[in-house]
Amino acid sequence: MKLPKSPLAPKAVPYLRPIRGARLAVMVSNYRYRERPDLLLMTFEEGSVATGVFTRSLTAGAPVGWSRRALKEGQGKVRAILVNAGNANAFTGRRGDAAVDQLGRAVAQTLRCPVSEVLQASTGVIGEPLDAQRLLPFVADLARNQGEGPAAWQQAAEAIRTTDTFPKASSRQCTIDGKPVTLTGIAKGSGMIAPDMATMLAFVATDAAVPPPMLQAITLAAAQCTFNCITVDSDTSTSDSLVVVATGKAGHGKVDNIEDERLKGFRVALTALLRDLALMVVRDGEGAQKLVSIRVGGAENDTAARRIALSIANSPLVKTAIAGADANWGRIVMAVGKAGERADRDRLAIHIGGIAVARDGARVEDYEEIPVAEHMRGEEIEIHVDVGVGEGQAEVWTCDLTHGYIDINADYRS
Amino acid sequence: MKLPKSPLAPKAVPYLRPIRGARLAVMVSNYRYRERPDLLLMTFEEGSVATGVFTRSLTAGAPVGWSRRALKEGQGKVRAILVNAGNANAFTGRRGDAAVDQLGRAVAQTLRCPVSEVLQASTGVIGEPLDAQRLLPFVADLARNQGEGPAAWQQAAEAIRTTDTFPKASSRQCTIDGKPVTLTGIAKGSGMIAPDMATMLAFVATDAAVPPPMLQAITLAAAQCTFNCITVDSDTSTSDSLVVVATGKAGHGKVDNIEDERLKGFRVALTALLRDLALMVVRDGEGAQKLVSIRVGGAENDTAARRIALSIANSPLVKTAIAGADANWGRIVMAVGKAGERADRDRLAIHIGGIAVARDGARVEDYEEIPVAEHMRGEEIEIHVDVGVGEGQAEVWTCDLTHGYIDINADYRS
Repeated sequence: MKLPKSPLAPKAVPYLRPIRGARLAVMVSNYRYRERPDLLLMTFEEGSVATGVFTRSLTAGAPVGWSRRALKEGQGKVRAILVNAGNANAFTGRRGDAAVDQLGRAVAQTLRCPVSEVLQASTGVIGEPLDAQRLLPFVADLARNQGEGPAAWQQAAEAIRTTDTFPKASSRQCTIDGKPVTLTGIAKGSGMIAPDMATMLAFVATDAAVPPPMLQAITLAAAQCTFNCITVDSDTSTSDSLVVVATGKAGHGKVDNIEDERLKGFRVALTALLRDLALMVVRDGEGAQKLVSIRVGGAENDTAARRIALSIANSPLVKTAIAGADANWGRIVMAVGKAGERADRDRLAIHIGGIAVARDGARVEDYEEIPVAEHMRGEEIEIHVDVGVGEGQAEVWTCDLTHGYIDINADYRS
Repeated sequence: MKLPKSPLAPKAVPYLRPIRGARLAVMVSNYRYRERPDLLLMTFEEGSVATGVFTRSLTAGAPVGWSRRALKEGQGKVRAILVNAGNANAFTGRRGDAAVDQLGRAVAQTLRCPVSEVLQASTGVIGEPLDAQRLLPFVADLARNQGEGPAAWQQAAEAIRTTDTFPKASSRQCTIDGKPVTLTGIAKGSGMIAPDMATMLAFVATDAAVPPPMLQAITLAAAQCTFNCITVDSDTSTSDSLVVVATGKAGHGKVDNIEDERLKGFRVALTALLRDLALMVVRDGEGAQKLVSIRVGGAENDTAARRIALSIANSPLVKTAIAGADANWGRIVMAVGKAGERADRDRLAIHIGGIAVARDGARVEDYEEIPVAEHMRGEEIEIHVDVGVGEGQAEVWTCDLTHGYIDINADYRS
């Protein structure tokens, strides 16, 4: 099924800045898709380090297992990431493990690096073992034809798509020690997460020089308030992977302390970049017609706030109401109630599009329905809920639940 | 919106057996619905006892708070249950509490019983305080016109409906001490749970004589594997209530021990009755075209099995695949993985319609796709998953996720 571009797709393609020490190449393997690039090899100069955040699924795919192991064994050193689109190589048992083993070894041999410095990611159909033989012939050419300019990044963003209706990529800059530092990332994902077609993958490269343990801490924190705060349908993929690679070519002074003030700009830039990518994934949510921001305040703590926000964001009743442009705050109350976190019924307050709808546990008398209805008809919906018990807060993003989602996922095979 | 009857509605209306000591009356209050009974008063002879299972929502409606308190203060003694359809009196703050107080007192005064022996339940719109003045005039007539035959039960099942497309009721029989015992129950609910219209309520009466603590234990256990094992859209209502009343008129010997062997038939009958009602709620799931049974075995324990089964049952991707008659076992694997319970990827086995689809963590070679596809096109879908780590098992029921669900819930106000 060829899908039309999401109405929420960004109007312009962002300029993608090259990252010193990072190079990319794509190829058409014809594995599942025809006549479009579906294979990506990213390579990094010696001295590059990486960290990864992977799906918490207990039935994670073979490439996830490989990459987790490689990062551990190689102590974060990285030279390459191989990505294919069309087959997730998940739930494929020992044959799946054998396939990643073959591919990982082939890349390592070609680049003359340890196997532990090769990472892998696959998305697409699950349950069918990946046929490594069909991809191995491309490894040498991929390694030979590496490029580093904006076009190479753009092609990479295209090549990793499955059901994505637009490529997702962004660049950000900051300084460390007065030296300019660049971050460029690509992502794919639309069903957050439809494991047979639309798993979330993101790859970020930066020329910053940040040692693996610090890179890990910064990445985890940034992922927590970006990729871990988006939801399209509450499902969790077997293949979700976020990898951040630091090539260390920016030439700034050594940072060896996580509290180092000089890292502040980098933290902000990485978080902003991951938010760019995460919001693009929501904007490409299957069938999405509206981007929804849900902010929760007044919770017992930030974790409680995030849980309440996700309970609202994942409620099919809230999501269908939004699809119908219905300011149905009763369903928001329901979702707060089922989150299981402390909330004070008699102090609950809800704003939609900045307008008070409920206050002190009851509907605002004569609230301004016209501007609220106006807001609900727009493309970007803002919901704010205060649960009245503490200082905890969180923001999550989701999309509405529409007929398009059913169309895409109720794949009538006939 | 007037909905057509669910295609999964039972073909025949069951015969509803009267319960000695229980009487019912309905009236047309025109509160929200026009020209249809929407108000029910059930009364029970002196000596009747009750137990209740209520929503875990932290934003539960005023009638839930009232009934919980009444059961506690009255130590389980009950004389009446007042139910209205059209307004849930939830998230209505102190005005909501005042309304249930007025209504509860009026019923108690009319029946000359303590207020603690009156229970209440309301479903319908939330966020609008119930106007007790509009219902109070009917209390005396409801109390005067009580009936006890099958027609009275049938009318009661009709009167408590909101978006339900068919009335839900069932009778079961058993013996205690050789004496025949009857159980008759009614229920409503279709969105499991759309809090503004389709909360789940169930009221069961029996002529058994079972003291409150034992009735509570038996009811909790029966609810756990019936009402707590169904899900339409994972949402939790602010008003869900299940009340079981025992009038004690069956004339069997005294039972005063929860382990009493003579209670076995009663346990089985109550569980069967609650399953009848719970499955009718699923069969009336908003937009439902298929009833889905999900059995999980081989889990660490029964709780883990239930959690995995609910993870599958609540997955929008699994539910849309079923709507599309697609035997998409990859999505089932995904849902197992996200449940967070122990599962052995390499021992996972999945059967659909009794046919092995995956075994030892991989797709069964050359599995019989034709009979599986045939099964998926039917109205009742059976999925069995063995996660290969222990002896825990559970069964849950759900329905598919269709365009009908979106139609019903994306209420385009124009």
